[in-house]
Amino acid sequence: MAEHETLLLNPQDVTDNAKMGEVIRAVEDAFAAYERGDAQMPAKSYIDLPQYNGDFRSMPAYLEAEDWDAAGIKWVNVHPDNPEDYDLPTVLGTMVYSDPRNAVPLAIMDGTTLTRLRTGAAAAVATKHLAVEDATSLGIVGAGVQSYTQLEGISQVRPIEEVVVSDVSERAVAKFIDRFEDEFDVRAGSIDEAASCDVLSTVTPVEEPIVSREMVGEHTHVNAMGADAEGKHELADELLLAAKLVIDDYTQTTHSGEINVPWAAGVLDDEDIYGELGQIVVGERPGREAADGVTVFDSTGLAIQDVAAAHVVYEHAEEKGNGYPFQLVDSRLR
Amino acid sequence: MAEHETLLLNPQDVTDNAKMGEVIRAVEDAFAAYERGDAQMPAKSYIDLPQYNGDFRSMPAYLEAEDWDAAGIKWVNVHPDNPEDYDLPTVLGTMVYSDPRNAVPLAIMDGTTLTRLRTGAAAAVATKHLAVEDATSLGIVGAGVQSYTQLEGISQVRPIEEVVVSDVSERAVAKFIDRFEDEFDVRAGSIDEAASCDVLSTVTPVEEPIVSREMVGEHTHVNAMGADAEGKHELADELLLAAKLVIDDYTQTTHSGEINVPWAAGVLDDEDIYGELGQIVVGERPGREAADGVTVFDSTGLAIQDVAAAHVVYEHAEEKGNGYPFQLVDSRLR
Repeated sequence: MAEHETLLLNPQDVTDNAKMGEVIRAVEDAFAAYERGDAQMPAKSYIDLPQYNGDFRSMPAYLEAEDWDAAGIKWVNVHPDNPEDYDLPTVLGTMVYSDPRNAVPLAIMDGTTLTRLRTGAAAAVATKHLAVEDATSLGIVGAGVQSYTQLEGISQVRPIEEVVVSDVSERAVAKFIDRFEDEFDVRAGSIDEAASCDVLSTVTPVEEPIVSREMVGEHTHVNAMGADAEGKHELADELLLAAKLVIDDYTQTTHSGEINVPWAAGVLDDEDIYGELGQIVVGERPGREAADGVTVFDSTGLAIQDVAAAHVVYEHAEEKGNGYPFQLVDSRLR
Repeated sequence: MAEHETLLLNPQDVTDNAKMGEVIRAVEDAFAAYERGDAQMPAKSYIDLPQYNGDFRSMPAYLEAEDWDAAGIKWVNVHPDNPEDYDLPTVLGTMVYSDPRNAVPLAIMDGTTLTRLRTGAAAAVATKHLAVEDATSLGIVGAGVQSYTQLEGISQVRPIEEVVVSDVSERAVAKFIDRFEDEFDVRAGSIDEAASCDVLSTVTPVEEPIVSREMVGEHTHVNAMGADAEGKHELADELLLAAKLVIDDYTQTTHSGEINVPWAAGVLDDEDIYGELGQIVVGERPGREAADGVTVFDSTGLAIQDVAAAHVVYEHAEEKGNGYPFQLVDSRLR
């Protein structure tokens, strides 16, 4: 590629160049860098557009892993009426991936696919450190667009064979089964059945908890992926309080993660949080221990995950000559 | 263009589709919207990379003008070693321009050219409201990359004939004269000569003032464009204190604009600021009045200016079929 060209990567390019195993490793590196203080992640900033029932969010980050560093920004939104009104996803994203040395935009890529990948990768990192070693069953509650990468990610870190998927939409369940039935023993099931698996991922937008303390298995690890705004809440408070509770980021989870509702109500406080995922990744605190029962990971999604995933995508695409090179930067402008 | 395609616009496309007169009107609309409360502009967020002597800045905004609205984000940087080390501009930018209704990225465009255009347009808006009506002479101190759009913008709002350009680099001055000598009576001159013109634009990165109270004419309007970080300071404090002082934004100018140094020192305070440009644009406060002497506009550059300029560029490019349409959004991802 000529010097200072920007590689444009569409959804297929992102999918083709994001090998899940590598994205998981990069996201794990990102959590470690964040914990060590080798990352910068300014607070997400919001633009609220009630007239369109939507919002925009800016998620910039820089991180320095052991043998690479990366910078970029994801410009992302939540417009719940998009599927109905525009035949578009609720969440769209655009990622600008930049060279930290000189700020050249190395790539601009579909951030919608990227978000799904890095979210599945975060669940995988948490599962790797918190689930029982021989976890073979995975329950998934909510069979929407974010559920696919849960299975893709988690099956990279545990020997998953059996998958139970639960959703109010039979069509969504059928589509999920159709996608994965060649690789796994996948079946539709109730929330109870999904929750009793070795690993459970909840990927719903609910505001009233749908998983109770009694539903989950004795040693189930739960990835609570759905909550990303105030008021959202998938797991019963008794479950959160009984679990070894790990969060991705203190500020984001207390504000808009799974724990935000009991936190605001004073039901859950600092004492109930075991730690951040990064602390476990770097070995500062142990992950699952012999005596542990239920574990919960509260994921809100961090800008460093996007930058880490974009790094993997860009490096592969550039090497393989994928994507469309575009002259966005003109050095004559100097 | 097919539905949901994203238009890619390189530096030439941005230049070709940004008619300065229209950019000035859009930027003026943006200042008005901001003043009326019809704009959202979260604080710029910074990522500092001392190891590369650089930084990244995120500048998201939304604004609703009388008959259009627009949203977007500029991801921009300052890497002062770029020209020397990479043959690149110090400041590069990438603009993502989005449909506020559904967040589709309508265009991704070169933000470097855009920054220069909207900066010239802001100076033009200020000059329109603050310079004497029959201003025919323009002084420019600093003949770098941002100086060209000063003349291009200001000559749209005043009948500029004579231009005096001053810079320590003879080569920069010669290049500037070469560019404009067919349209204007342009000549090299001292800072004193430039400052005595009807309008003066200072476009330098200095930290010690280079324009004194004595240098400027009795009714000169000064656009102080250079300061964009703590410590930068182009105009002597006595000049700032003597002038009718207008700023683009209170938070940004007191933090990193022309007034930041005397502000931090307590030499200049709220009493010395006449108002924000938006207040003058909407008619809440008068611009130049008969009794006024020297006026100063302190410009730091606002995200709403970028979004306004991007709106003009996109609308024209789309209409003319310019740019490269790219399938960044895949509605099948729903």
